[in-house]
Parts: sequence; C-alpha cells; structure tokens
Amino acid sequence: VAAKVEASLAVTMQQIEPLDERAAAAMQATLDAKTKPRGSLGQLEELVCHIAAIRATTELAPLKPVVVVAAADHGVAAEGISAYPSEVTRQMLLNFARGGAAINILAARAGAELVIVDAGVCEPVVDKRIVQLRIAPGTANAACGPAMTDAQTAAAISAGADLASALAESGFGLVALGDMGIGNTTAASAVCAALLPAPAAAVCGRGTGLDDAGVVRKIAVVERMLGVNQPDCNDPLAVLAAVGGLEIAYLTGLTLGAAARRLVVLLDGFITAAAALAAVRQQPLSADYLLAAHRSPEPGHTLVLEALGLKPLLELGLRLGEASGAALALPLIQSALAIAAEMATFAAAGVTDAGH
Amino acid sequence: VAAKVEASLAVTMQQIEPLDERAAAAMQATLDAKTKPRGSLGQLEELVCHIAAIRATTELAPLKPVVVVAAADHGVAAEGISAYPSEVTRQMLLNFARGGAAINILAARAGAELVIVDAGVCEPVVDKRIVQLRIAPGTANAACGPAMTDAQTAAAISAGADLASALAESGFGLVALGDMGIGNTTAASAVCAALLPAPAAAVCGRGTGLDDAGVVRKIAVVERMLGVNQPDCNDPLAVLAAVGGLEIAYLTGLTLGAAARRLVVLLDGFITAAAALAAVRQQPLSADYLLAAHRSPEPGHTLVLEALGLKPLLELGLRLGEASGAALALPLIQSALAIAAEMATFAAAGVTDAGH
Repeated sequence: VAAKVEASLAVTMQQIEPLDERAAAAMQATLDAKTKPRGSLGQLEELVCHIAAIRATTELAPLKPVVVVAAADHGVAAEGISAYPSEVTRQMLLNFARGGAAINILAARAGAELVIVDAGVCEPVVDKRIVQLRIAPGTANAACGPAMTDAQTAAAISAGADLASALAESGFGLVALGDMGIGNTTAASAVCAALLPAPAAAVCGRGTGLDDAGVVRKIAVVERMLGVNQPDCNDPLAVLAAVGGLEIAYLTGLTLGAAARRLVVLLDGFITAAAALAAVRQQPLSADYLLAAHRSPEPGHTLVLEALGLKPLLELGLRLGEASGAALALPLIQSALAIAAEMATFAAAGVTDAGH
Repeated sequence: VAAKVEASLAVTMQQIEPLDERAAAAMQATLDAKTKPRGSLGQLEELVCHIAAIRATTELAPLKPVVVVAAADHGVAAEGISAYPSEVTRQMLLNFARGGAAINILAARAGAELVIVDAGVCEPVVDKRIVQLRIAPGTANAACGPAMTDAQTAAAISAGADLASALAESGFGLVALGDMGIGNTTAASAVCAALLPAPAAAVCGRGTGLDDAGVVRKIAVVERMLGVNQPDCNDPLAVLAAVGGLEIAYLTGLTLGAAARRLVVLLDGFITAAAALAAVRQQPLSADYLLAAHRSPEPGHTLVLEALGLKPLLELGLRLGEASGAALALPLIQSALAIAAEMATFAAAGVTDAGH
C-alpha cells in the first residue's frame, strides 16, 4: 500500500508544517491582558493558544466550522459484532439526508455546515445532500482477508485529503470529524490494536450496545482479523487496508489534508481517533493539528487519546458517533475564540491588574 | 436570623415541590425511541430527564435562559485574602455594563439574557444596565464580627427570591447563577466550612490567584471568621449573616425562588455552590432543581458538589466566576433539549431498532 498511497499523498504530507509557537506565546500574552485573573479560563486558554499556533495568527475569532460525517459498511459485520444490522448504515444515511439524526440537530445548533460522505455503504442513498464517493459497496470481511485493496485504500485517503483542500478553499477554519458505519468500532479496534500496539481485549468495548458475550466475541474477531492479515504494524496504511474501513481511511486522508491546510481538526470519538492515529503514524506532525472533543466509554478511545497526547474537552459518556461529541464541544471552542477576540483588556476597561 | 428571614421566605419554601418523576420516566422513553443507540448520549440523557422532572413536562425544547451575576464587596478583603483590591469589584461592574467582560461575551454566545445585580458594592456604578439593589456598601469584616445584620441578610435573600418570580413571569426556564466580589471565595469558604462542616484548610483554595502564603493566610482568616462569630451550623441563614456576603445571600434567595417556580438552576463555580448549599440546608427539596455547570480547582467546590450530589458537565480548570462556566455549559444543555425535541424516532425514520 505504502508506495501507491504515498505517491498520491506525498505532496500533502510534505505540506504539513510544525506549529507556529510564536503565535501561541503571543496569544497567551493577549489573553493575559484581558480583564480576568491570569489563566482563569484553564484548559480553554491552552486551547486558544493551540489554535493560534495551528492557524499561525493571533487574529483569532470564531472559526467557520464544518462537520464531516463519513459513512461506510463493514464486511466484518457478518461476524455478529454489532448490536445493529448492516442495513442501519444506509438507513442512517437517509436519516442524515432528511435531517432527523442527532448530528443534524447538533451541527445546526453549533452553527456548522454538515457534509455527509458515502465512502462505501452497501446500497446507495440517492440524495443530493450526500456526497456519493462510494469507493466500494462496503469492505470485505476482514476476519477472512484484507478489508480493502490497496487501490481502494489509496482512493479513500486521497478523497479525504481532497475534501480538506476544498474546505480550506471555501474558508472553513475547523473541520469536525464524524463517522457512521455498523461494525466500525470493530474495525477501529483492530486498527488501534495494531498501531498502538495493544491487545484486542484492551481496546474492544461495547460499541453501540454489545452485552458481555458480544464483547468477548468482538475480541475474538479482532484477534482473527489481525491473525489472518498479519499487517505490518509499522505501516499505518497497510493496517488500514487490512483491517480498517473506507470511512476510516477517508477520515485519515481528511486529517492529513486538513493539517496540510492548517485547519483545526476536531475529533469525535473512537473511530475518528483511530483514523487520526493512522494519520499521525504516517506523518507525526499532523498530531499538532488535532483537538479531542470528548472521551467516550470505549476503552480503546482512552488509549488512543493518550497515544496522541490529547486531553478531551468533554467527558459525558457519549457513545453515539456521527460527530455528535465534536458538535457538542464546538461551542466551547468558539466561545473561547470569541473571548480572545472580543474581551476588554485591563487597560481599556480601567480595571486594576494584579499582574499574576 | 431564622425567624426574620423565614417569615419572608415561608411562602417560597412551601412552594418548592418534589420533582415530577413520572415526567422523567416518560422523557427517557421518548429518548429511547430516537434514532440512536439507547443511552448513547450518556450524561446528557440523564440531564434531559432531570429537566423534564424539574419542568414537570416532556414537552421540552431549549429553555429561555438568563444569566444573573450578583456582585458585592466584602469587608474581610481588608485581611489581605485576595490577589486583587476591593476596587476591582466596582471596576468589573463597570466592565459588565460596558460589555467588555468574559460573561458579556459568553452569555451572548449562549443566547442568554444577562442581568447584573449590585447587591452591595462599596461604591455604586450608576448605569441602567445594573440592577441597583445595594443593600449595604459591602459587608462588615467578618473576621471581627458578623458580616451582615439579620435585616440585611433577610433583604438580600428576599430580593433574590423576588427576582426568581419575576424571571418566571417573563418566561425564563433556566437561570444561570454567577458572582462577582473581591474576597468572596473567602466568604464562601467560611460558609462551606460551617455548613458541610469541614476544616477551613479543606475548603480554602487560591481564589483568583493567591500564592501558597496567601492560602495559609486565607485559612487563618476563615478560622477567625468562624471563631469570632460562632454561627450555629444548623442554621444556614445565621451562617450567611455571620460569614457570608450580600451577593451570596442574594444567590441563596434566587435559588430558593427559582426552585419554587420550577426553574432550572444552573450553578457556576464555588461561590454559587456555597449559596446553593445554604439554600438546600434551609429547604432540602431545592437540591433537586440544581445543575452543576463545571468543577473548578477550588477544593471547597468539589466538597460542596459532593454534598449536593451534583455531577458537573465540564471540568476545564475554570476559576473565573461571573457565571462564565455556567454560560459555557449552557449550549450543552440546550443541545440536549433540542435532541429531545427535534430528533427523528426509529419508527418515523424507518431505522431498525436493536431495542436495547
């Protein structure tokens, strides 16, 4: 895989630059001049400085936000590792198109545009509100062989990177990542088990609602996926091809493309974190462009957040996916940026500054 | 105090009713029919059901929100227990009036009306955007005797309860509580030390930015406040009079009044939690109307949240006050209510329900 994908991704990966640490330091000085005790916005001040470093400017204001939900089906669902049948992926795509899903409501409340991408659902939903990428009608069953061909993996990653460029051209400053795909916590578990690395039992959780026996079955399936395919754990793109998914590879490409365009990448839950982990293992500089919206109860999510060095904004037991946690965290980010842009300084407001 | 205040508060306290547990159960059933795995919104589902029980209805939608920031000065500031001089209370009131403070920006982003109450700042800010309650020009130094007279305490509590009635009449459904007052983490620490009860050293923290020596001094001052006044720890209003503050008593009254009108009470940080603790010790049923926006680094805040049985929505190291944490948490609450109101059901969307 590496050769094929790297050819198409080579330019993107070279475009990813280190953070602008001078902008971060200048931003902290700006925050320190505002009429509030120094550091009293805690983690939100770190966030603002981090975003200044990503955007390479202290001229910050709430960013134009977009939520991208990538959907795909998973052949491994045939192994009975989800509480829901595969048809639900397509049904939810229709729900997204009609505006009835959680992410429709949450993205609207957060003032974010919503882009839904069919990266490879078994049956199409013909609707102009859905981007019809459809690289394949779902992956193959990764418990029996590779989930994707090298060409499919390369196509998904490239398409994700291309979307990032288009979003940057359209003036978006923040892209929130989301997923939909019955069976995709199993695929994400296999990707993370390979890349962290970690035992299958340490990363597998209940997903959308497995019982204890279901989790035991899922662990065995992840072990089979890795045993059958034996992906090279030092080759993140090979891991994606072997045990990942079309939406996961797409989100990996989107992460790399967004980092190359200095967009803030807001991760949702476990699936998007797995996609980002693959991106970071491919190009470590991309880690600096990531924010974690929340910590889900999936045990693998905590492991990936630690591996990526990310401190989530929310910890509310969310396990819905669809970028729902990212959309919920978005107002925190926008409010913190508004503080940076709009709040009075000690000098302008005539407030005595304790100076520390 | 008890007799005097209880006369004016008797009606309010009798109006506070238990939660509507049937509305909570019906709300959970409604959420379970929505197109998402059961319980997948975690703490936000509990929140929606709790609000249904407060409002005694399942016909929920985002609530009309108001942020109330009560400000006052504290005689105990003379003991050198704050990083900032007392004048800053008035300066910040002016900053609120001019729209330059953090809460101006955060309340606007949350779509909340902002009410600023001068409950007793030393020097007035003459501005129509500030409610001129001004029960006294600050409290007396509680390290030398009672902070307030019984009449002042009663007046502050009654005025807070009256505002709640007025807010309910105006159609507000949620009131976020906030505070401003140099020295008020010391007053709140003394109130909490008395009511929890807990040693002064267990509740005192850095406030707006004390160093280690400052915290040691603050602990000694809180011990003197309690030693000099010897308030009856079983009489929360006597504790408020002895070691509390005008804005704290006002927020206690606001909490009781809001509970009597079935308003959702969203607490900010340590000061508002101390005020709510006094309300709950006076009328235990009022506890059911409280939500905690965040957990601050003040050690006393965690103790009060535990005593009140509250699980905060955010934990971001916020220690700004002014209702800033409450305003930051508000979009989470409104988004959760929007989910309850607007999301499609499995049946309506044609999505297969796993049924668990």
